[in-house]
Amino acid sequence: MAEKWSFLQDQDVLDFNRDIERYHLGPLWHAIPDLMKHQPEPHAQAYLWKYSLLEKKLMEATQIFTPDRGGERRAIYLQNPGLNYRKPWGWASTTQTLYAAVQLILPGETAPSHRHVQNALRFVMEGEGAYTIVQGERIFMERGDFLTTPNGFWHGHGHPGTKPMIWMDCLDIPTIYFLGGTFFDPYPERLQEPEVPDNYSAQRYEGGMVRPISDRYPKKAPLAAYKWKRTHEALEGLSRFEPDPYDGYAVEYINPSTGETACPTIASWMQKLPKGFHTKAHRHTHASIYHVFEGSGYTIINGVRFDWEKGDFFVVPNWAWHEHVAEEDSYLFSTNDLPILEKFGLEREEAFENNNGHQTVTGEFTPVLG
Amino acid sequence: MAEKWSFLQDQDVLDFNRDIERYHLGPLWHAIPDLMKHQPEPHAQAYLWKYSLLEKKLMEATQIFTPDRGGERRAIYLQNPGLNYRKPWGWASTTQTLYAAVQLILPGETAPSHRHVQNALRFVMEGEGAYTIVQGERIFMERGDFLTTPNGFWHGHGHPGTKPMIWMDCLDIPTIYFLGGTFFDPYPERLQEPEVPDNYSAQRYEGGMVRPISDRYPKKAPLAAYKWKRTHEALEGLSRFEPDPYDGYAVEYINPSTGETACPTIASWMQKLPKGFHTKAHRHTHASIYHVFEGSGYTIINGVRFDWEKGDFFVVPNWAWHEHVAEEDSYLFSTNDLPILEKFGLEREEAFENNNGHQTVTGEFTPVLG
Amino acid sequence: MAEKWSFLQDQDVLDFNRDIERYHLGPLWHAIPDLMKHQPEPHAQAYLWKYSLLEKKLMEATQIFTPDRGGERRAIYLQNPGLNYRKPWGWASTTQTLYAAVQLILPGETAPSHRHVQNALRFVMEGEGAYTIVQGERIFMERGDFLTTPNGFWHGHGHPGTKPMIWMDCLDIPTIYFLGGTFFDPYPERLQEPEVPDNYSAQRYEGGMVRPISDRYPKKAPLAAYKWKRTHEALEGLSRFEPDPYDGYAVEYINPSTGETACPTIASWMQKLPKGFHTKAHRHTHASIYHVFEGSGYTIINGVRFDWEKGDFFVVPNWAWHEHVAEEDSYLFSTNDLPILEKFGLEREEAFENNNGHQTVTGEFTPVLG
Amino acid sequence: MAEKWSFLQDQDVLDFNRDIERYHLGPLWHAIPDLMKHQPEPHAQAYLWKYSLLEKKLMEATQIFTPDRGGERRAIYLQNPGLNYRKPWGWASTTQTLYAAVQLILPGETAPSHRHVQNALRFVMEGEGAYTIVQGERIFMERGDFLTTPNGFWHGHGHPGTKPMIWMDCLDIPTIYFLGGTFFDPYPERLQEPEVPDNYSAQRYEGGMVRPISDRYPKKAPLAAYKWKRTHEALEGLSRFEPDPYDGYAVEYINPSTGETACPTIASWMQKLPKGFHTKAHRHTHASIYHVFEGSGYTIINGVRFDWEKGDFFVVPNWAWHEHVAEEDSYLFSTNDLPILEKFGLEREEAFENNNGHQTVTGEFTPVLG
Repeated sequence: MAEKWSFLQDQDVLDFNRDIERYHLGPLWHAIPDLMKHQPEPHAQAYLWKYSLLEKKLMEATQIFTPDRGGERRAIYLQNPGLNYRKPWGWASTTQTLYAAVQLILPGETAPSHRHVQNALRFVMEGEGAYTIVQGERIFMERGDFLTTPNGFWHGHGHPGTKPMIWMDCLDIPTIYFLGGTFFDPYPERLQEPEVPDNYSAQRYEGGMVRPISDRYPKKAPLAAYKWKRTHEALEGLSRFEPDPYDGYAVEYINPSTGETACPTIASWMQKLPKGFHTKAHRHTHASIYHVFEGSGYTIINGVRFDWEKGDFFVVPNWAWHEHVAEEDSYLFSTNDLPILEKFGLEREEAFENNNGHQTVTGEFTPVLG
Repeated sequence: MAEKWSFLQDQDVLDFNRDIERYHLGPLWHAIPDLMKHQPEPHAQAYLWKYSLLEKKLMEATQIFTPDRGGERRAIYLQNPGLNYRKPWGWASTTQTLYAAVQLILPGETAPSHRHVQNALRFVMEGEGAYTIVQGERIFMERGDFLTTPNGFWHGHGHPGTKPMIWMDCLDIPTIYFLGGTFFDPYPERLQEPEVPDNYSAQRYEGGMVRPISDRYPKKAPLAAYKWKRTHEALEGLSRFEPDPYDGYAVEYINPSTGETACPTIASWMQKLPKGFHTKAHRHTHASIYHVFEGSGYTIINGVRFDWEKGDFFVVPNWAWHEHVAEEDSYLFSTNDLPILEKFGLEREEAFENNNGHQTVTGEFTPVLG
Repeated sequence: MAEKWSFLQDQDVLDFNRDIERYHLGPLWHAIPDLMKHQPEPHAQAYLWKYSLLEKKLMEATQIFTPDRGGERRAIYLQNPGLNYRKPWGWASTTQTLYAAVQLILPGETAPSHRHVQNALRFVMEGEGAYTIVQGERIFMERGDFLTTPNGFWHGHGHPGTKPMIWMDCLDIPTIYFLGGTFFDPYPERLQEPEVPDNYSAQRYEGGMVRPISDRYPKKAPLAAYKWKRTHEALEGLSRFEPDPYDGYAVEYINPSTGETACPTIASWMQKLPKGFHTKAHRHTHASIYHVFEGSGYTIINGVRFDWEKGDFFVVPNWAWHEHVAEEDSYLFSTNDLPILEKFGLEREEAFENNNGHQTVTGEFTPVLG
Repeated sequence: MAEKWSFLQDQDVLDFNRDIERYHLGPLWHAIPDLMKHQPEPHAQAYLWKYSLLEKKLMEATQIFTPDRGGERRAIYLQNPGLNYRKPWGWASTTQTLYAAVQLILPGETAPSHRHVQNALRFVMEGEGAYTIVQGERIFMERGDFLTTPNGFWHGHGHPGTKPMIWMDCLDIPTIYFLGGTFFDPYPERLQEPEVPDNYSAQRYEGGMVRPISDRYPKKAPLAAYKWKRTHEALEGLSRFEPDPYDGYAVEYINPSTGETACPTIASWMQKLPKGFHTKAHRHTHASIYHVFEGSGYTIINGVRFDWEKGDFFVVPNWAWHEHVAEEDSYLFSTNDLPILEKFGLEREEAFENNNGHQTVTGEFTPVLG
């Protein structure tokens, strides 16, 4: 390669670039090696955020972001250090395509109803008593619950309970922003009124792989909330058999009317790694955001060890080698952009062949505690 | 109409028909009123079979059909009286498109493994201890379980238990026969050997609307057996809300990797009708076969009352007005050919508008007891 | 097999059959060998109809079927000798699933507008000057044109011209009748009035593989008429290369908004066989109806030679070995039920391996001339 | 809004932002108004490049980019002035999602074969005699031809002719780069050898809406080159009727095996605007790149008049009001990202209601001539 591209630094070539740039023209022969990589070289980096830090900053944020002051949500999102270059035009996102955030709502507060073309999902981390209202369904949230609000669904939150409530948000904000097709509408009132009984859809899906016959034709989100109790049962059943060498025991939340992933653009998985389980390393073109729901252990990403414990978040960028080790029974909730990459035929996966599938650890990540 | 078609009986017209018939030609102008009805006029009729009769004949069949005598299955199927005209070329089926049968297997017996392009499903009515082996998965069956063996899947049965076992079979035999594309293969040995742990797939789907990530791409039947316990939980959840005016509380078994109905050509529903519930009447182009899993009541089909109790079977033909009345809490399992009609854009539905949605009863069906 | 099924003829078994038949029950163990064949054994037979016969009978039919006498269409359809058993319940169709007919309209006549759920297509054989009105588009037909009127489209015909006009009709009448979902509506007036310019859609598709941008989303039939001139050009282009060993130079008419076959349930092909070309033999689960548009030659079907010339029709049933020989440059228009078999995953194909792909001729078909 | 967001500038809020930024955290409440716009506010701007400028720079580039010097293609691409902010991380693209470029190849030159996951298409502007080799098919290109090389197809160019050849390239480079899933492979030799006859696929599709039966199942690009002669015929046919008020007479290049747009991620349209035709204004979420193939006129984009003549290029960004006026019979070739926006359910369209659908001209664009 070097040979092939050395001419790009010749003076006459650089001069030509400068010349045509004045006319808003660029040399494709120079852009090609920069933009059409032989394999993915994402700007996004592997990174880990400690829950202690996130919780501390969320609590401080209660002084900054107050419902009466305006604004939509009290949420702090995770900025990928490798994506800081995007700040001039916006904000550093968590992966190339997704935003992950932690949101805090205090008893007595509400977060206004709105809708947008961005797809969103929610995973409940701490607390109880708060509800969300999605398209007229009020849903009381409990730790471990997974919720989705696809493109165009009204949603707002309220908290009649007694303790602070914290959840993870994940949205495809950077993708939609990149495509340039954003639409956002505030709801006429502060909060939409419930139009069906509380926790309606979760109760309509309390059993096995059956659906109400009225949901037999494609719907965006016939099931708005997936209760932890049920997801946990699923993992218990799966755990009676051999684990997947790369993912242990992992399930995907689905849309029961289409069989597709629950949120149109973001795949959401919950995986169980039994104490002592060490996955084999692989890499794929989609990127993942992990939240440690339970347990502790570490993940080796491109040779660097990231230790994690309950509440932490970490990112595995596109095409990064990664393997997990659980030091106690662990449950990892994760979101990824596989559904987006599949739309473009870009998904590829590769197993780490050497050393029986295990990377050599070349370094350790030191978390910032704040 | 009469006017328009009267000429078809004129002597010269009849003579012409006879003449061209010798050359294997027919008058389309005459076939049109016979075959292109203004609305469905199925040959299939409404009919009901008592369980006492079915059980009696199955027991007698143990003398006739013995595994050592040859043959594939000890199953007696339901012949629709309206479809007797088909006997010259085959057998009267249960509806235009489907076969429903009751199958009995005795302790110690086996039914040989085979595969065919016909799609099949099974609903367990009585007994316990028998198993089926579907594509190398041995599944022990219990009352209320639903199982599916799609096009091309090996399946055979065995019974190490102690009591006779009875289940309902439903297949698309008449449809595949009509289309003329049948293929059938016996398995090299009497029974296929298990290749995965017993009851594997049901245990992989023990929780809510999540699936093992390895099943995220379309599979024919990632879940082979749907346990009654789970289906019952689903109906309990659904029952907290308003019933559907036509179907009460009804769920459809789905393929979790596609969101489609569990069996490619046959929709399978389980519905709960609370004691005293009286549905409104409607009709649709698809035909249904009902099995009374629990309870008692009656169904009014085109004005005729069909009383049913636990174990009975009855048919609602295409485009027949029908409404159900439950005299105790009842569970009706049913299969229908909606997936087939949808492939041809033929599904239509119509509500019975008069008399607040209720038909006038003009007669009663008298069951044959044998 | 014999062994395995011999017990079906035992007296006690036959007695049992007779006994349960009284209760509208049947022995599945006996139906299985009759209906679930190891490979397709269609009732439909290979057969050939001479054009001289068809034309003669159509002319005679002008005395029988007169517009003022009532009825819908002056069309004589082809009855497959193997399907005569269906007459008790209807009419013998041309293949298991399709009807093929020849229709004659005289100058000054009209055929009333109607619509139905059956899908229909038309291929123009002789004459000129007649038009069809499909969903408000009046289309003047010329020899070699292909037209389609899918499920639910209004269509009627008129003939302001000077010479009798004859075309082939093909419909999925037997399939829809079997499924039991027929709907048919006469148009309020004798003929629907044109709502767009004459020959509108064909002119909107006069060029290459481009479509009006308004047709970018799925439509049932954005293009109603495919002109012979264009289809002929396509075959000329294709003929510059190697022919397909089984089909020579063959093209399929497509729906330009979906890429699917032009008529939802019936594939329509036009193939060119250069003088002297001899295809290899193969068989497939779909059945075909051939019309000799130009040329002469013969087709060997399951060892029997069927000689054909311009205007003739012949049937190749499901799973029948067949190969074509062209004695002059020949154009064969054909329709088949591949789209129907594909909906059920039933399509299979097999090459004739022996004797360099050629069957041994064991007999000749003698046409009935009338 | 102002009210609602004013707190974002309060000192304590800004201090908090700075504080958490140290930990790679960001305030979602601040990102929301920046990134989740109430309607699209693309960075991309309307802009126009004169052909005289492009041709001049391409000729100068022959001194800079010489095959023996290395590099892949002698192409100069169009940089959207509004997207200069992207330069820190790459290059300013033509629209948010696409690259458009002009490529020049001289007699005797070759451009090496390579493949990549980016989708590409080509529209021939000037010259003759050059060929491209796409997946082993050598295609000689003529003015007005449209060619496509989807994701993963090998392609390279050669020029045995006598005059310089120029074409437009359009690729989804920025989209794939954003998603982070790039793969690129050089071909083992300089140029792939032809494996089929020259201009094979175009000759296989010389007729109407029919396809070779071997292409009936989905293929990425069964037709690699769409000849201008055929596209022109299509526009002539369409031109006999009423023009579309927004697009005149416009056709889309399609993949004949799927009915989808010819290039998976980029829609390609050719439209004819008769002399004097003035379209109505509308806007949509997809963005377009126009190339003036023939004629002259102007386009009003968000009130600004852009005059164009043969060879020019101009961009209509997402959600920009636009209307065209043709001063002579004009043919506009355009590409857009509608297929990408549709994958995310983001496409919306709006008609300009006031002033009979016409904008008020508030300014004129002054082209840079160089």
